[in-house]
Amino acid sequence: MAKESYVDVLVIGAGPTGLFATNALVKAGVNVKVIDQRPIKVAAGQADGIQPRTLESYGLVERLLNEGNQMHMAAFYNPSPNGGIELTERVPDTTAPTARYPFEVTLHQGAIENIFLDSMAASNHSVTRPCVPTSITISENEKELRDPQAHPVKVVVQNLAPQDGEPDTEVIHAKFVVGADGAHSWVRKALGIKMEGEQTDYIWGVVDLIPETNFPDMRNKCVIHSEKGSCLIIPREGDGVRLYIQLSDKGALDSGTGRIDRTKVTPHKLFEVAQTILQPFTIETPKSFDWWTLYIIGQRVASNFSINERAFIAGDACHTHSPKAGQGMNAGMNDSHNLAWKLVHVLRGWADISLLKTYEAERRAYAQDLINFDKKFAKLFSTKPQTEDDQDGVTHEEVMHAFQIYGLFTTGIGIHYTGTSIVDTKYQSLASGLVIGQRILPQIFLRATDSRPYEIQDLIISDTRFKVLVFVGDTGDAKQRDKLNKLAEEMKGVLSPRAPGGDVSKLFDIMTFGTTKKEKVIYNDVPPFFRTHWSKVFIDDVDTLGKIGGNGYEYYGIDKKEGAIVIVRPDGYVGTIAPFNGTEHLKNYFANFMSQA
Amino acid sequence: MAKESYVDVLVIGAGPTGLFATNALVKAGVNVKVIDQRPIKVAAGQADGIQPRTLESYGLVERLLNEGNQMHMAAFYNPSPNGGIELTERVPDTTAPTARYPFEVTLHQGAIENIFLDSMAASNHSVTRPCVPTSITISENEKELRDPQAHPVKVVVQNLAPQDGEPDTEVIHAKFVVGADGAHSWVRKALGIKMEGEQTDYIWGVVDLIPETNFPDMRNKCVIHSEKGSCLIIPREGDGVRLYIQLSDKGALDSGTGRIDRTKVTPHKLFEVAQTILQPFTIETPKSFDWWTLYIIGQRVASNFSINERAFIAGDACHTHSPKAGQGMNAGMNDSHNLAWKLVHVLRGWADISLLKTYEAERRAYAQDLINFDKKFAKLFSTKPQTEDDQDGVTHEEVMHAFQIYGLFTTGIGIHYTGTSIVDTKYQSLASGLVIGQRILPQIFLRATDSRPYEIQDLIISDTRFKVLVFVGDTGDAKQRDKLNKLAEEMKGVLSPRAPGGDVSKLFDIMTFGTTKKEKVIYNDVPPFFRTHWSKVFIDDVDTLGKIGGNGYEYYGIDKKEGAIVIVRPDGYVGTIAPFNGTEHLKNYFANFMSQA
Repeated sequence: MAKESYVDVLVIGAGPTGLFATNALVKAGVNVKVIDQRPIKVAAGQADGIQPRTLESYGLVERLLNEGNQMHMAAFYNPSPNGGIELTERVPDTTAPTARYPFEVTLHQGAIENIFLDSMAASNHSVTRPCVPTSITISENEKELRDPQAHPVKVVVQNLAPQDGEPDTEVIHAKFVVGADGAHSWVRKALGIKMEGEQTDYIWGVVDLIPETNFPDMRNKCVIHSEKGSCLIIPREGDGVRLYIQLSDKGALDSGTGRIDRTKVTPHKLFEVAQTILQPFTIETPKSFDWWTLYIIGQRVASNFSINERAFIAGDACHTHSPKAGQGMNAGMNDSHNLAWKLVHVLRGWADISLLKTYEAERRAYAQDLINFDKKFAKLFSTKPQTEDDQDGVTHEEVMHAFQIYGLFTTGIGIHYTGTSIVDTKYQSLASGLVIGQRILPQIFLRATDSRPYEIQDLIISDTRFKVLVFVGDTGDAKQRDKLNKLAEEMKGVLSPRAPGGDVSKLFDIMTFGTTKKEKVIYNDVPPFFRTHWSKVFIDDVDTLGKIGGNGYEYYGIDKKEGAIVIVRPDGYVGTIAPFNGTEHLKNYFANFMSQA
Repeated sequence: MAKESYVDVLVIGAGPTGLFATNALVKAGVNVKVIDQRPIKVAAGQADGIQPRTLESYGLVERLLNEGNQMHMAAFYNPSPNGGIELTERVPDTTAPTARYPFEVTLHQGAIENIFLDSMAASNHSVTRPCVPTSITISENEKELRDPQAHPVKVVVQNLAPQDGEPDTEVIHAKFVVGADGAHSWVRKALGIKMEGEQTDYIWGVVDLIPETNFPDMRNKCVIHSEKGSCLIIPREGDGVRLYIQLSDKGALDSGTGRIDRTKVTPHKLFEVAQTILQPFTIETPKSFDWWTLYIIGQRVASNFSINERAFIAGDACHTHSPKAGQGMNAGMNDSHNLAWKLVHVLRGWADISLLKTYEAERRAYAQDLINFDKKFAKLFSTKPQTEDDQDGVTHEEVMHAFQIYGLFTTGIGIHYTGTSIVDTKYQSLASGLVIGQRILPQIFLRATDSRPYEIQDLIISDTRFKVLVFVGDTGDAKQRDKLNKLAEEMKGVLSPRAPGGDVSKLFDIMTFGTTKKEKVIYNDVPPFFRTHWSKVFIDDVDTLGKIGGNGYEYYGIDKKEGAIVIVRPDGYVGTIAPFNGTEHLKNYFANFMSQA
């Protein structure tokens, strides 16, 4: 006797990618179920790097900063003329000048999963585990596939620890399925999606430990190129560190399959290699290792990220690469961040189902960039350093150059979506500092009513709404007020017909940003349509100490007289920009992907 | 049948003052009991202003910022030539350039009490309520009074809601008692302590409401002087505001007693006065008021703050004044902040019992300043504005002048303790920017090991330990290292003999602040005695973006070659300063109030 159930979205896999998606959907009120094959969540090890972009505006940052370690500097060690290694240079760990948080955070995957699990628990949601999918089928009925309210995906799952009286088999009928089940994704294989790319022969080992050492850079990211091999040090929360250690010995490979054979290596053996690489510095052998693993670097991207925009794959399920640049978990969470709001808009009937095509278009292009970057980066890390005897080796300058030019990429700050229905660059010149298709730049504005400074990213929260940012200029000027009153009427004409149940604020969060100074501004000079609450009116002025704020228009490249209307997508990326006399452009922009108004 | 019990400290009164003390003692592991006569904590109204100094470094700030409203600007309204009032000027609400948080927070008293109650609950402590004291006696046995481990105070209490089987009378034998039971303090009266000072005839009313209004400054602090009377507006959390309204009508007084008779006024009547004062702006009469009260301004200070340093009074129990400058709750919490660590040191046997005399010396001097300030401030608020017809009225310039010169005082930033055994100004010139007896100035340093920026106030936490801040200069310089190694030996000689159980870190938290740059610093160049952990070594350098940090030595007025040793008291106030060759001075400083080593 199988149980039958119906959900809007079934998420398969409760790692950071799956939990990010689930939590976002739960918070949007979607009927979602998440299953995972593991009986409990991971307790140690696994992914741990959180990039600056991931720290921005997902609502995670408070706990990440409280619980995680911060990496601000990177130290580069190379062969010393006296033997062993020596410090060559220390530089900032991140090179992304617009980043709100100019550092990486490290925190073990279990702690990150906890953030989502706690958030879900507050909404009475949890993971069904251990539970494995055994079959997935998607209806071929065209009409069903076009109807966002149909349940065309059928997934049969086995609940390995059913509650009393519950059958262990469940047939789940889902409107949409998200496969976030990792590099060996069952969903991907079941859907027949191929991975494209290749494997290198670089073998690396990873050990997590608490070090006793005289090495002075154990709390910085360290890139160590020694004649004995390469090692990367990543400090972690508490006193812990992670060492990535290159294995030149191919003895860890199974000669038959070419795969890693973990039984042939121990963490102590890995650690001995690290001790050799770190000389003349000493690091004591710890009593135990918190976690360890071995891997061969491979770079692969899935040929498709969805089947019929009904079953999707995300995270490691659709892209795998080397872990050393700390990208994996971030890429996966960003996949979910990109997908979740689109599912919500389609499920609510606000967007046409074709919006979901933009997921693959945006995220697969990103994944390919990631893989191309990773190939170059992994090679640099895995090549021996140049020495007098070995002129073919990699130089410090080459490593440093790569480290810095890829900074925008590795921080996630440079993510740039182009060529989809939700990115329209027509009026890019009106805000030359805000790149359409990139995330909104951090900047501090004052709230007009109380001069309290706000970081705009804290206003642009992931609440599934489009943000309508009206840069209104000087509202103390009577002529400008006339212009704004006219604009408000026109904007009402654009936004109101799309308002669910007549409530514009369900779909659009409207805020204004003026140029009047805090001593003079009268917030009720802003037309009522643009201020649904006193907290929605902002000004571009310095704070009471004159230390922060006041640079917004200039930084964004917006003219103080002309103003601009900036539309930010629910995931924080700039969707389009329009001039005050360009409300027709906005009408067309929304018509491109929203349901018929 | 009365129950008999023994506690280290009995706190009477569970308002913010009593809870602050209780929580601090609980966290220090002291056996403490707190009782309150109210069956439940306050739900609305009461005190609500939290000053910049209170926001600094008590561990409260995270929740206060999450839950509270922030006041950044103050707006001044005066009679308009067209009738009614008009905006004269807006200025920053706080004038204390060194404040870490340049604004006030407003949050109702119940929410503030919750912060302490939650913290106590995490240590399995709660308030015994409703419970009233009925008698208090202090032993007159000199030997007992001198012995910190004796229980010379006997308090009999009535538990008004005893648990099953418990007697309702309890005889509590306490080593120390803290009376934090408000303006009508039972403890104060029972101990025969007199209040000194007088009462004015200014009558004010207070209403809390959610306003519907076209008044543009409802989210700023407003000082309104109209010809119809004075009004002060304090925005509160959410959409709420508090109005302080001057009543010119003496009808609210009981002609017999001269006291307020609340039955003669209603909140609606108060509100009508406010409506008149606010003209030409309109504010709709709300359906209900969240809270309201009436008071006559009086300024009084208790003649003593303790009896034999065994029973203390704190907060409103020892000083009362007008509420409009938002001082009361802050003064009370600062009383507790001053007292709690001293009790802990005496109870642990680390300090001589005479240390407790510094509580009255420091806090009564402050209370007298507070009362003197309040007399002037209350008068300015309660006097009519100057107009053509009334040349005797107060001018805007007078109000503004007072507002700004008292800024250091009202923010709490200027609190300055002098003339006690725990403040020694001998070497003040070594750190001209750090005033001995004032709180340590906020400043950002980088952690040497990972270049992570830290606000020094977040390192100087209220954990009952003295902070030993060694400004070590350039540890990259070999000569400086020699000097530091010698200093470390001498400091070991000063601190180790006082170490409880041989563990220096129980009583002293040692940190170093160097001048070597982040690209070069080797943290293990600092002598081991000064770095009990890698996280204890800091440098005065800019962060990776070059935006913050790097100004510490200059701001503190410390010479980069000479260095200095700064001793910070457990409550965050600078206790003394010494040169590298002045460890003898430190030995004497600690000998002044600590137990025999």
